[in-house]
Amino acid sequence: MKIIDVIVRDIRFPTSKDNIGTDSLHIDCDYSATYVTILTDDNNLSGVGLTFTIGKGNDLCCKSIDYFKDFIINREIDELEKNLLFIWYQVTDHSQLRWVGPNKGVVHLAAAAFFNAIWDLISKYYNKPLWKYVLDLQPEELLKKVSFSYINDVITEDEAIEIIKEKKKIIPNNLDVLESTIFPAYTTAAGWLGYSDEKMKKLANEYLQKGWTHFKMKVGQDIERDIHRCDIIRNVIGNENILMVDSNQIWSVKDSIENINELKKYNILFFEEPTSTDDILGFRKIKDAHPGEKLATGEMIQNKILFKQFIENNSLDFSQIDSCRLASLNEIIPVLLMSSKFDIPVIPHAGGVGLCEYVQHINIINKFLFSNNTFFLCEYADSCSEHFENPAQIINGSYVTPTKPGYSVKIKDNSLNKFDYNTGVYWN
Amino acid sequence: MKIIDVIVRDIRFPTSKDNIGTDSLHIDCDYSATYVTILTDDNNLSGVGLTFTIGKGNDLCCKSIDYFKDFIINREIDELEKNLLFIWYQVTDHSQLRWVGPNKGVVHLAAAAFFNAIWDLISKYYNKPLWKYVLDLQPEELLKKVSFSYINDVITEDEAIEIIKEKKKIIPNNLDVLESTIFPAYTTAAGWLGYSDEKMKKLANEYLQKGWTHFKMKVGQDIERDIHRCDIIRNVIGNENILMVDSNQIWSVKDSIENINELKKYNILFFEEPTSTDDILGFRKIKDAHPGEKLATGEMIQNKILFKQFIENNSLDFSQIDSCRLASLNEIIPVLLMSSKFDIPVIPHAGGVGLCEYVQHINIINKFLFSNNTFFLCEYADSCSEHFENPAQIINGSYVTPTKPGYSVKIKDNSLNKFDYNTGVYWN
Repeated sequence: MKIIDVIVRDIRFPTSKDNIGTDSLHIDCDYSATYVTILTDDNNLSGVGLTFTIGKGNDLCCKSIDYFKDFIINREIDELEKNLLFIWYQVTDHSQLRWVGPNKGVVHLAAAAFFNAIWDLISKYYNKPLWKYVLDLQPEELLKKVSFSYINDVITEDEAIEIIKEKKKIIPNNLDVLESTIFPAYTTAAGWLGYSDEKMKKLANEYLQKGWTHFKMKVGQDIERDIHRCDIIRNVIGNENILMVDSNQIWSVKDSIENINELKKYNILFFEEPTSTDDILGFRKIKDAHPGEKLATGEMIQNKILFKQFIENNSLDFSQIDSCRLASLNEIIPVLLMSSKFDIPVIPHAGGVGLCEYVQHINIINKFLFSNNTFFLCEYADSCSEHFENPAQIINGSYVTPTKPGYSVKIKDNSLNKFDYNTGVYWN
Repeated sequence: MKIIDVIVRDIRFPTSKDNIGTDSLHIDCDYSATYVTILTDDNNLSGVGLTFTIGKGNDLCCKSIDYFKDFIINREIDELEKNLLFIWYQVTDHSQLRWVGPNKGVVHLAAAAFFNAIWDLISKYYNKPLWKYVLDLQPEELLKKVSFSYINDVITEDEAIEIIKEKKKIIPNNLDVLESTIFPAYTTAAGWLGYSDEKMKKLANEYLQKGWTHFKMKVGQDIERDIHRCDIIRNVIGNENILMVDSNQIWSVKDSIENINELKKYNILFFEEPTSTDDILGFRKIKDAHPGEKLATGEMIQNKILFKQFIENNSLDFSQIDSCRLASLNEIIPVLLMSSKFDIPVIPHAGGVGLCEYVQHINIINKFLFSNNTFFLCEYADSCSEHFENPAQIINGSYVTPTKPGYSVKIKDNSLNKFDYNTGVYWN
């Protein structure tokens, strides 16, 4: 079976109308997807992948992928699977494009969409959900697909093999057990910055009734308003439930130290993105100023080299990996392995377009192949789930393990045709 | 006087034919420019700016600039000058585009081209070379144009004012002295990886005869070949001249430690980019393994937040700022200030397209407004100088201070028309 074409579409949903996704820095998000379809000579088999953006710039990611197509067109799927890491380097270390990256920004987000589609294709080829395809690989086979470039001063392939082999000893061999794993989630649904007090209260109450126990709230307006909002949420959810806050990088290091001092009385599980997520040393300064308080970051950490430093420098307490910013599992797995080695819980970023669908696989892979921690949690936001053929399912505030083959991000044809930014009826 | 339009052209020179720019990771560079022209309602006044890329991806930078145009069209130049930092934040913290950056990669390179054109326009409006326009500004006025976001834990505006005021006390007030300043340069002309032994010897000899005393060589093939090339160059230039090597990030941290051990006997002024320039902690590990050896990096350091950490963490010994990767003087000046505070010499990256033309201004600004160090040096490579109306001038291995108004990167119309990637006769 052979790859015959790669199709890219610029899909944008007009979520800014409803203030979905609003935070201290992103005030008008139109949740978007750089949507990739890999066609094969078998009409019943195609790979689908995406990267998530918030509107403008989605076109740039789409255009980048034109440069990657030739690396896979005309390849047999067996051969693609065997040479996956080689192709990953051809794309991410492209001799001309790396100047405008490398391994970050537009071209790296595009690489994520492209390799997400490839992993989807390969797991469908084996008729398995992505998580199951990965769990079934021999440790050596899996590691041949992932990149250790620039990180072997912190984790070696030998260490990685050991981590996986130890976990494999205790992996449930009954598929029913794996498929019925329930993975705990938290919600930001009540906490967007654009919401009024009343809307926040109403939504927090609704989610509490549905069985949710972990709530995240955006902060980063003036600090008095942030305190007021923490008060509101704590009053609704009580002290027995968990609260997290997220300031989306709006503060300097100094601001972060001051503002966390004001908010920590609300018993916050973690402060997310207090300052720039390029600032490994800055995060550590904030932690040192507030012993006992915990920091989370990752949705904007550009690549495994920056993750490496955040982890080894004790600059974060929770790794919030993003399935569309890191260049697919080839790069995500090394971050999961480093998180395991340093015993850092992984709490994937989700929401947006397709992120919940992706991370439900990553959670299972991390739980059964890598992590030795007992704390598991994942973000959930039901934005745009109506557009997916098989959206992530939640029961009582927990993710239900997906069972269909592939990596779960196929968008309905109706939605694609309506919201294609170039040809869709909505935008025309 | 008012801005009426912004024109962007994708200019690519076919330098890969001659192996110019070849290094361990960039094997087929077509030196390119995202070329921006700001038109005003005065036919005699326009601003020209560019960012440098190496071929593919230049189109992505061009396309990004479409999103910035509206921030300046219809503005008066006085008003543009007054609101420069506000506009800089509108572009670099754009509420949707920041997701595909922020402050790095394609969109940040595009911001550099855009603001380079604006600084060119403003200094031409005052009929001064860019360096002179900046030197003439009051310290407070200058600092109102530069960004301190995310760096005030390492340098404050008050500290910056002090640095500039102290330097202003000893600035020569005779323009002739400033204009006749000669700024020492080094050359990489003999050291590209694609060159044969014979070509290297010949070029090194030629440049020695022309008065050059500082030579840089690319390394990063197999280490035996690197040693062989160091031998050749040292034999030609002798021990009295200065040698530097550049491995363009090809090594891991471990490789770097091993390979520097092999090469340091050649008395190397600095090892440039041994490993990924995202790796602040990695650079420090390499330095700690080789006390006394010096590291240089910067042409790929994405923004001032990463520079901040490299500097405060003692991870580099020379700041190689890039005039087209940092988003113009608004971001370069903060890096010069931090380098001054920590007494790190600044050795700008040059070569490519237009970089020599840009850094000749930055060198003068740094020498007379910021640096208290006595060591001054700047890269020079005469690639593509034939296409510029007023290319940087070198005498006896030193830069000659530019005297014409503006920021010096106007490309000849003939060259633009021939090498425009969309419409030029060369590519069609």
